[in-house]
Amino acid sequence: MSTKPKIVVLGAGHAGLTTAKKLIQKLSPEQAEVVLVNKHNYHYEATWLHEVAAGTISPNDARVMISDVINPNKATLVYDTVVEIKKDEKRVVLENGDITYDYLVVALGWKSNDFGIKGMGENAFAIEDIDSSRLISEHIEYQFAKFNNEENADPDSLNILVGGAGFTGIEFVGELADKVPQLCRKYDIDRSKVKIINIEAAPSILPMFEQDLSTYAREALEERGVEIRMAAPIKECTPEGFIIGEEKELVKAGTIVWTGGVKGSPILEKSGFDMVKGKVNVNPDLRMPDEEDLFVIGDCSWVWDNEGDRPYAPTAQLAMQEADYVADNIIALMKKEPLKNFVFDNKGTVASLGHSDGIGSIFSGYKLTGKKAAAMKKVIDNRSLYLVGGAKLVLKKGKVRPF
Amino acid sequence: MSTKPKIVVLGAGHAGLTTAKKLIQKLSPEQAEVVLVNKHNYHYEATWLHEVAAGTISPNDARVMISDVINPNKATLVYDTVVEIKKDEKRVVLENGDITYDYLVVALGWKSNDFGIKGMGENAFAIEDIDSSRLISEHIEYQFAKFNNEENADPDSLNILVGGAGFTGIEFVGELADKVPQLCRKYDIDRSKVKIINIEAAPSILPMFEQDLSTYAREALEERGVEIRMAAPIKECTPEGFIIGEEKELVKAGTIVWTGGVKGSPILEKSGFDMVKGKVNVNPDLRMPDEEDLFVIGDCSWVWDNEGDRPYAPTAQLAMQEADYVADNIIALMKKEPLKNFVFDNKGTVASLGHSDGIGSIFSGYKLTGKKAAAMKKVIDNRSLYLVGGAKLVLKKGKVRPF
Repeated sequence: MSTKPKIVVLGAGHAGLTTAKKLIQKLSPEQAEVVLVNKHNYHYEATWLHEVAAGTISPNDARVMISDVINPNKATLVYDTVVEIKKDEKRVVLENGDITYDYLVVALGWKSNDFGIKGMGENAFAIEDIDSSRLISEHIEYQFAKFNNEENADPDSLNILVGGAGFTGIEFVGELADKVPQLCRKYDIDRSKVKIINIEAAPSILPMFEQDLSTYAREALEERGVEIRMAAPIKECTPEGFIIGEEKELVKAGTIVWTGGVKGSPILEKSGFDMVKGKVNVNPDLRMPDEEDLFVIGDCSWVWDNEGDRPYAPTAQLAMQEADYVADNIIALMKKEPLKNFVFDNKGTVASLGHSDGIGSIFSGYKLTGKKAAAMKKVIDNRSLYLVGGAKLVLKKGKVRPF
Repeated sequence: MSTKPKIVVLGAGHAGLTTAKKLIQKLSPEQAEVVLVNKHNYHYEATWLHEVAAGTISPNDARVMISDVINPNKATLVYDTVVEIKKDEKRVVLENGDITYDYLVVALGWKSNDFGIKGMGENAFAIEDIDSSRLISEHIEYQFAKFNNEENADPDSLNILVGGAGFTGIEFVGELADKVPQLCRKYDIDRSKVKIINIEAAPSILPMFEQDLSTYAREALEERGVEIRMAAPIKECTPEGFIIGEEKELVKAGTIVWTGGVKGSPILEKSGFDMVKGKVNVNPDLRMPDEEDLFVIGDCSWVWDNEGDRPYAPTAQLAMQEADYVADNIIALMKKEPLKNFVFDNKGTVASLGHSDGIGSIFSGYKLTGKKAAAMKKVIDNRSLYLVGGAKLVLKKGKVRPF
């Protein structure tokens, strides 16, 4: 190790960006070199992508230039794609270079996971990043734009089929319930011609919430014209739609989106890391087992709760709290002090159901629904922006839409 | 003829809408029944469609509900598609009905004319109405949205190929020169990857302007990154692009638009009217030759200038002035008074080259270029709105964008 340690952070999502931010707050450039590697020159709010995909916010509202929130005089910013991590050589292979490290923080996020459902990868869109999300909203709008220009337009081409009733799937159909009437007005199409269909294998939606909230969400969405089909496992995805259930019913749509699962970045598997259900299990101090200097956080690791009976649900809130611990633990390693074990401070969970409805569970069990939940969701989104870029960023991109 | 004559106006473009407006201003419901038949329940500013097609204005900014500008208590509004005019029976066949008339004003507008160029109808978009124009802007944006999501994206897919350097073609590429940099920023695509190519068979662009203005326009557009190829006749249109010249060069693009010609509504030919180069020649009083009660105006007729050496160029200005004469001539017919011959009062012509540039020729020969011409174009567009719907409509949809 050189006299000045080199800390490399891979990924500028909530986990990586927060880690880099905390490190340059706590360490001077003389104490350590902090390098942040990211594919793009921007960070995006991954929890807002369903809105980009529905077209209810602009892609640019969901992202921020990294150099606007990380002072380039205090950290080295590298915009490149990670190819492989060679942990035995303490080196990261990038598409356009190589980088060595003393401490590594892997925060490379997630990709869509189709669990091997036939045809899903080829025929369904996924809400993964800015590029893939804005493609979905453009694809939907293109179906509407084409419809009245075709002699015998296929009525199913207007339908939007969403696989998976987890957070992303349900928040996405909630936005669609807002967006579709706007598109219908813009393109002179009767609202009754457009189906928004959510398909879920499990017998309920949003399993992270208690039953009453989940029921509220389902009924609210159904009232706004979303069809929700639970206990309907998808057997196959074809260019026309999903084939579901034992009866092999074909549900058709011009836009097919899969939101049913995620797995950690494929770079981890490629680097020979031990994967458990698509992610890396980490120790309570957030290091990879048997590694001194390698942390894995955010959506590419499983962090287990103190009882050890289940991993925490992956959220931006979790990622940012993990980042705080990692920054402190790296400094502890530099000082040869003991590391802290991660403790999650759950501030609650709120899911939006479009612009003016939602459900939430906060302050150990207090439940919210409707406009209050929608308002709380915007508070949370603004808080996330605040943590990324301060008050200035909230003013610029914050969700101050009236509700 | 019943005691109260029935005047039927077909089409609510500038010609038809203005005719109906003038008639209900000058005649009370007791004096005549005025019926306005239109395919949609809205009028659109046809001269703004190139902006809708480029995506620089919203489709809704270019249209207005007919019932907002024609009082339904003073005229009968019929939203239906004309199938055929049976002039010998004084009857119009609609898709969902039949309508008889005492006086008929045919103002059914135009369709794209590909002059039989092979493959043009199947493979190129046309800027014809709201539906077809917004499809173009959505198609362009979809190419951008897809680009960064594809492994080996075809670089030509971003190109936009525009056939024809008349008013619509040149105003369209002028808007594209504004829009493409915005799309590049939105979708993280380098501007240098996108070609805007205008192809024209004639050796110059905008032939209705004098040479110096046409040269100004060409140079201004080229400076803003538009490729203009003159003296380049299109031999064929394929799904990939245009095949041009004797060398059969293939120019490729993901978006292909034909603006090279128009012809009068196909309903006229279907109704057995005498067609000359796609339109009907009318007498100086704007009636069809040998017809007592049938006027044809706007983009489906040729009105010849007083010297009789050429027809007036079809513009919104011309259409609205024709409508004034037709309203008066119908009233003259009702009173058995002599009809007036049409005299065109040419207030000049201005072409926009995007948001802040243009060329114009006004006040018998006074020439304008640059921001002044762009400003004048917006004045003209607002005047057109004013004539359609008064000051209220200008406030609502007027082009008060700063320049």
